[in-house]
Amino acid sequence: MNIQEISSLLEKVRESNPLVHNITNVVVTNFTANGLLAIGASPVMAYAHEEAADMAKIAGALVLNMGTLTEKEVKSMLLAGKSANQHEVPVIFDPVGVGATAYRTETAKKILRELDITIIRGNAAEIANAAGQQWNIKGVDAGEAEGNISELAKSAAKDLAAVTVITGKQDIVSDGRSTFTINNGHPLLTKVTGAGCLLTSVIGAFSAIEKDPVKAAVASLVVYGSAAEIAAEKTDGRGPGTFQLEFLNSLYNISAADVELHGSFERTNG
Amino acid sequence: MNIQEISSLLEKVRESNPLVHNITNVVVTNFTANGLLAIGASPVMAYAHEEAADMAKIAGALVLNMGTLTEKEVKSMLLAGKSANQHEVPVIFDPVGVGATAYRTETAKKILRELDITIIRGNAAEIANAAGQQWNIKGVDAGEAEGNISELAKSAAKDLAAVTVITGKQDIVSDGRSTFTINNGHPLLTKVTGAGCLLTSVIGAFSAIEKDPVKAAVASLVVYGSAAEIAAEKTDGRGPGTFQLEFLNSLYNISAADVELHGSFERTNG
Amino acid sequence: MNIQEISSLLEKVRESNPLVHNITNVVVTNFTANGLLAIGASPVMAYAHEEAADMAKIAGALVLNMGTLTEKEVKSMLLAGKSANQHEVPVIFDPVGVGATAYRTETAKKILRELDITIIRGNAAEIANAAGQQWNIKGVDAGEAEGNISELAKSAAKDLAAVTVITGKQDIVSDGRSTFTINNGHPLLTKVTGAGCLLTSVIGAFSAIEKDPVKAAVASLVVYGSAAEIAAEKTDGRGPGTFQLEFLNSLYNISAADVELHGSFERTNG
Repeated sequence: MNIQEISSLLEKVRESNPLVHNITNVVVTNFTANGLLAIGASPVMAYAHEEAADMAKIAGALVLNMGTLTEKEVKSMLLAGKSANQHEVPVIFDPVGVGATAYRTETAKKILRELDITIIRGNAAEIANAAGQQWNIKGVDAGEAEGNISELAKSAAKDLAAVTVITGKQDIVSDGRSTFTINNGHPLLTKVTGAGCLLTSVIGAFSAIEKDPVKAAVASLVVYGSAAEIAAEKTDGRGPGTFQLEFLNSLYNISAADVELHGSFERTNG
Repeated sequence: MNIQEISSLLEKVRESNPLVHNITNVVVTNFTANGLLAIGASPVMAYAHEEAADMAKIAGALVLNMGTLTEKEVKSMLLAGKSANQHEVPVIFDPVGVGATAYRTETAKKILRELDITIIRGNAAEIANAAGQQWNIKGVDAGEAEGNISELAKSAAKDLAAVTVITGKQDIVSDGRSTFTINNGHPLLTKVTGAGCLLTSVIGAFSAIEKDPVKAAVASLVVYGSAAEIAAEKTDGRGPGTFQLEFLNSLYNISAADVELHGSFERTNG
Repeated sequence: MNIQEISSLLEKVRESNPLVHNITNVVVTNFTANGLLAIGASPVMAYAHEEAADMAKIAGALVLNMGTLTEKEVKSMLLAGKSANQHEVPVIFDPVGVGATAYRTETAKKILRELDITIIRGNAAEIANAAGQQWNIKGVDAGEAEGNISELAKSAAKDLAAVTVITGKQDIVSDGRSTFTINNGHPLLTKVTGAGCLLTSVIGAFSAIEKDPVKAAVASLVVYGSAAEIAAEKTDGRGPGTFQLEFLNSLYNISAADVELHGSFERTNG
């Protein structure tokens, strides 16, 4: 995989305008929809039990995010997920805050058990907890990462049978055999709520147009992180309000040339 | 109807600060509330079954938007809508994504059957599907418009017994007899999630202070589209993040003189 | 209490990064989370019945906001609130729109009866209605304040057995014995939806690191109002879209020196 493949995938997202079906949390719906529009995808949110399966089957990708889960939404996720699995629509899972409460841990396990998840994305604590390891987590924010994140991604990918994306200072993508490290991004992303959730949805957009989930994930992280770097430059220290606006602008404007200039990733394993 | 009538209605919204009761989708609540505040209205969101009717009856207008409908919210919409009908509060309906799933189509028909809708607003595909015609729709975004939009607005207005607003490259307002075409607006509106939903709520604000729903709708479209044009000028190519901010500024600042300078509409029929 | 104590509390919030558990309305979730991140807190939203109590007990503060209440969310608030009371986590209550419908009034009374509320925050109409007095209210916005707000705060604090914060042109904090008046803030705050709701959550952040609720509330109001003044200067008349962005920047950047320069409050009673 090289940087030109990534910039081509970005162009393909914009040309294809894939429909991304999100069942996500109430904090990030607006930012997620605006971010998906900016990158060139077509967002839809639909979680009524009566239509979750119908919407998932016509989507290019299904994104499940348990940030503000309730019993009803978990049922919607399972209905939509089974429909997606049946119709070969990729399912991207964001296990927000898994480990923070027993309910989140049980729900993440249920979703992982009942659905065929294509890609799971979280911070190190979330991925560790989703994979049955004990990591400290504070609310929905990651604790400090300890241990080898790359090894965690590899073992989680095997245990969960899903391409695993761990985001943090560096981002890791692994399917248990091939592992990539992505060096893009900016600390201001942690000051915008839903920056991780939107990334998961952007991975959905790339998965809709690229069948290899490792390639789709690596491309998403490189594009997203590069857009964040450009936005941070334009923000010029003014703060997270400005950064959020510049980030939406940047997702909209980022060109193949920008991706090729900023993108930084390497295959680190396998 | 002339442009001075429209700028007077804008001033009347600002003086009257009408209470607009919204039962809307979780993606756009914040943007809708901020947009209504900017234009000079007073937004309230309330959908508990215990209070939906009470809130609707004290409002200047009720806005029903089925973007992320569930069984509970549909029941709230019916409770609020019946109360509004009983107390002669205008009801504005946004049938988001009707046609995308069977559930949306059935729900839109139920709402149209059980309530007296004053104004319905959607893109061409939504209005066609709401009126029982088959149009392609992709998620919640319109497919390409085919056929005569103006004729569609006229026939839908008759079939649905509601003033019909179709938005797109041009906007159409029709009550089945009089038809208006509005030429304001900007393509960047399609890159901000909820731009259509907020417009529906702004039509609510104008309906609260102008009894003739055709006038209220035409005035809303001219003011909203003119504000978008001003915002696009200020955005100066920077992207949809900047445009969203400038659009809120523009709804807040747009003057009678701005409306008279930018406004462009004509009676095209009847 | 002097201005240096307030700037120290701000620094303590940033060092401690307290977890603030919000059960709040769907209009303001995103702005609340971004505002809490900007001031240096760690927001979490969780309202499933299965986890509300678990999340509340690990939080530094619990914020209950009934802006878009439903039966299910009221039950979550009670579950979370009882858990917070049991684990000595301060509970901050925002009775949005109490008085606008019978359901809101009954719910506010139920919450005040069943939970030990540390601090209640509202506009004058909301506080009066919560305390069983009849004030006019229009939707969720305050009517014009009549009568002596300071006396209202004092009597409500006694009647409700909670530190009472009334916000408006001036802000009042009272525990029934000591009363403070805070002169910071800016009218543009009323043009951003959720500015009051976010303030309530910021009071939660300060309550997590300062045991005296009067001090926590006064510090929050001074910091928040000062940040608004700085944001209004930077907005320079451009409108509420720009102000919202600048306000998030300002919450993120406001320094101890800024607080000491802008802060204006006085003990007015007791």
